[in-house]
Amino acid sequence: MKNDANGKKKMHLLSFVQHGVINHAQLMWAHPRDKIGYDYARPPFWQEMGRILERGKFDAIFLADVLAPYDVYKDSYEDTVRYAVQCPVHDPVALVPVIGCATEKLGIGITISTTFDTPYGMVRRLSTLDHLTEGRLGWNVVTSYSQNEFKAMGLKEMVPHEERYERADEFIEVCNRLWDSWENDAIIADAETGIYADPTKVHRVEHNGKYYRCNSPSFVRPSPQRRPVIWQAGQSGRGRDYAAKHAEAVFSIQPTAKALRCYADDIKIIFALQVVVDESRSAAEEKLSKLKSKIPVDASLAIMSGHIGYDFSQLALDEYVGQIHVEGIRGLLESVLATYDGAPVTLREAANFYGISLGAPVAVGNPADVADFMEELLDAGHGDGFNVMATYVPGCYQEFVDFVVPELQRRGRFRQEYSGSTLRHHLSEY
Amino acid sequence: MKNDANGKKKMHLLSFVQHGVINHAQLMWAHPRDKIGYDYARPPFWQEMGRILERGKFDAIFLADVLAPYDVYKDSYEDTVRYAVQCPVHDPVALVPVIGCATEKLGIGITISTTFDTPYGMVRRLSTLDHLTEGRLGWNVVTSYSQNEFKAMGLKEMVPHEERYERADEFIEVCNRLWDSWENDAIIADAETGIYADPTKVHRVEHNGKYYRCNSPSFVRPSPQRRPVIWQAGQSGRGRDYAAKHAEAVFSIQPTAKALRCYADDIKIIFALQVVVDESRSAAEEKLSKLKSKIPVDASLAIMSGHIGYDFSQLALDEYVGQIHVEGIRGLLESVLATYDGAPVTLREAANFYGISLGAPVAVGNPADVADFMEELLDAGHGDGFNVMATYVPGCYQEFVDFVVPELQRRGRFRQEYSGSTLRHHLSEY
Repeated sequence: MKNDANGKKKMHLLSFVQHGVINHAQLMWAHPRDKIGYDYARPPFWQEMGRILERGKFDAIFLADVLAPYDVYKDSYEDTVRYAVQCPVHDPVALVPVIGCATEKLGIGITISTTFDTPYGMVRRLSTLDHLTEGRLGWNVVTSYSQNEFKAMGLKEMVPHEERYERADEFIEVCNRLWDSWENDAIIADAETGIYADPTKVHRVEHNGKYYRCNSPSFVRPSPQRRPVIWQAGQSGRGRDYAAKHAEAVFSIQPTAKALRCYADDIKIIFALQVVVDESRSAAEEKLSKLKSKIPVDASLAIMSGHIGYDFSQLALDEYVGQIHVEGIRGLLESVLATYDGAPVTLREAANFYGISLGAPVAVGNPADVADFMEELLDAGHGDGFNVMATYVPGCYQEFVDFVVPELQRRGRFRQEYSGSTLRHHLSEY
Repeated sequence: MKNDANGKKKMHLLSFVQHGVINHAQLMWAHPRDKIGYDYARPPFWQEMGRILERGKFDAIFLADVLAPYDVYKDSYEDTVRYAVQCPVHDPVALVPVIGCATEKLGIGITISTTFDTPYGMVRRLSTLDHLTEGRLGWNVVTSYSQNEFKAMGLKEMVPHEERYERADEFIEVCNRLWDSWENDAIIADAETGIYADPTKVHRVEHNGKYYRCNSPSFVRPSPQRRPVIWQAGQSGRGRDYAAKHAEAVFSIQPTAKALRCYADDIKIIFALQVVVDESRSAAEEKLSKLKSKIPVDASLAIMSGHIGYDFSQLALDEYVGQIHVEGIRGLLESVLATYDGAPVTLREAANFYGISLGAPVAVGNPADVADFMEELLDAGHGDGFNVMATYVPGCYQEFVDFVVPELQRRGRFRQEYSGSTLRHHLSEY
């Protein structure tokens, strides 16, 4: 990790959004300043988002994803649909060219599961997008963990957790071989002789593995980054091993610096962070309080149940979370608990916090407060940057870019200008 | 089929291209006026193409596809790679938003195989694109017929032809149910109550069929066209049955009007047509002759072998095609033979013709000649329009739009202006 002259580590900034009615904070589509709820399916909204983030010199816009409506809470997707709890969510892949055509430097990261595709098909899709964005593509590799996704896609059985990573390991290996199947000088494109490429420099990938097979070279010529920047979001032990082996950056949702740790030296660790900023501390605090006050508890519990895989409708809302003893979810609940530094909170309060930030920390205050919070979290947590979560959009990013980015730049904590054009460049610049 | 006042049937026009180094005529990347060979992987080329076709009031840009390099000829992909015989070909899906963002009315049709995807995933992808283009998406449903595609994707066995259509039948049925899973008035989006959608109007599709399963509503809210316009290109008996059941338009590559036939009354039949136009007939004929003269015979035979599934390197180039008697390919060769109206041609000549047009007719001459040819073909063949093939691009479409379109409009054979904004509207306008 490179530090600048004053010894302070510079940070990377990504936005943490989805191609749906809301992002990761509940009910924001209903906020008077939110545009996504109505415009999420149309290009101008996303092109404006891209331009705002590029103006703020963000490393990338990052599009998370989910493949089907959560249906763990009350064993139904009723509240998920009713409150637009990440539902509908459209295909993020299609946004890459939309945002790419409106920007020049901003990286564009998407989430695609390895579970429902083939390595050959994935490489073709991703390399095509890396071309169309001239080398700005990132791929957040996920393996799918939810029963509802498997049911929607029509796979009878969930692939067990361990096997999913074993499959994903092999999947990426085949992808890497396909990405290397055209040598750098394979393309000749000589109009005189009519020879476009030298077939001796285009190599058939012959793979006959435990889970995947392939027998072809890639069908896409090498793209500007050759392979997209690989991201990974797994928090489990197996997920961390996977990340250490394949990923260039890791996304982590951890609530306090105490809980943060490095698990590989040469990987960038990017922390999720919700930000509510205003000119004054009191205005920001009032804003956050208002945003949280309107979130229906059923919306928060629908997403929390979906993520944790436990139906929280079985518990009383006034029960103290610390006293909940349910097999298998204790560790997961701790991430919510820990945000309160041990003070007893009820399930209702925990859900409300989850509803605004998925358990990630919330930086609230004036620009200096937010910058202080981010500096401390970065240094104490040994992180490399932030996935800045959204409230109302694109307004919250306009505010972040106008208020917080200049403060971070003044403190030598963030780039003043892009120094290159590819996503890999941005992430390895410091 | 609606006729205009003078009793002449109006035609539909689509362009027939690919997201690759070349389209369907060999070696065009090497032509001094061709831009695709160098710019096919970058958005500005495609945005210019879209604007040219929209200026010409085309119904749609149609992107054909192939999934892996042809390797039947000489049992190798050597000549396919060497001469860029539809290789590389990038993912056409990614071009939809690129072209969509640069145009307002032009339909955008893509080819995706049902063989390597799930109905749920397909619906999510297509509905997302129909939103982002505000209702301009067409889907050419194919089932994949080439061994090399199955090998690349890692499927051990080819799915037999009959079973592929049986699978595709079921595939589309599940897609249709997903496209209908949100009722028209399901979305409420009431900011006061926080209720986004009425869950009683969002229906779970429960399908447990022979080949596919699904258990979820669609994850995309109804798009402007609700489902893309469905196209089909199968020429076999089974393919035609499939088209009659599911398709709104059918693509056909037939070399003369004699060979054309309708196989369902309410489906639009679109004929592939290669066009070489210039101000004078002699200039056009000279242009065509030059374009054909440079095509390497190995390039033509590589694509012909790939399409027909027979390795033509086993035959002598000077053999007369009429004397070739090889089990299983006789009927397929006839489409090439027929273009010469029975006159004996050698394999070399047939290949050259295949190299410029895939066996589709070639309209060559001044604007009036081309318009005459198109009128006659349309009326005699009972067709509804043309897939206009490419030579050098975008130049050949500029010429078509500047020379041929005004002539067709003067004759009352083609629209003067768009009268609506969706692809389905364009295709059903007359």
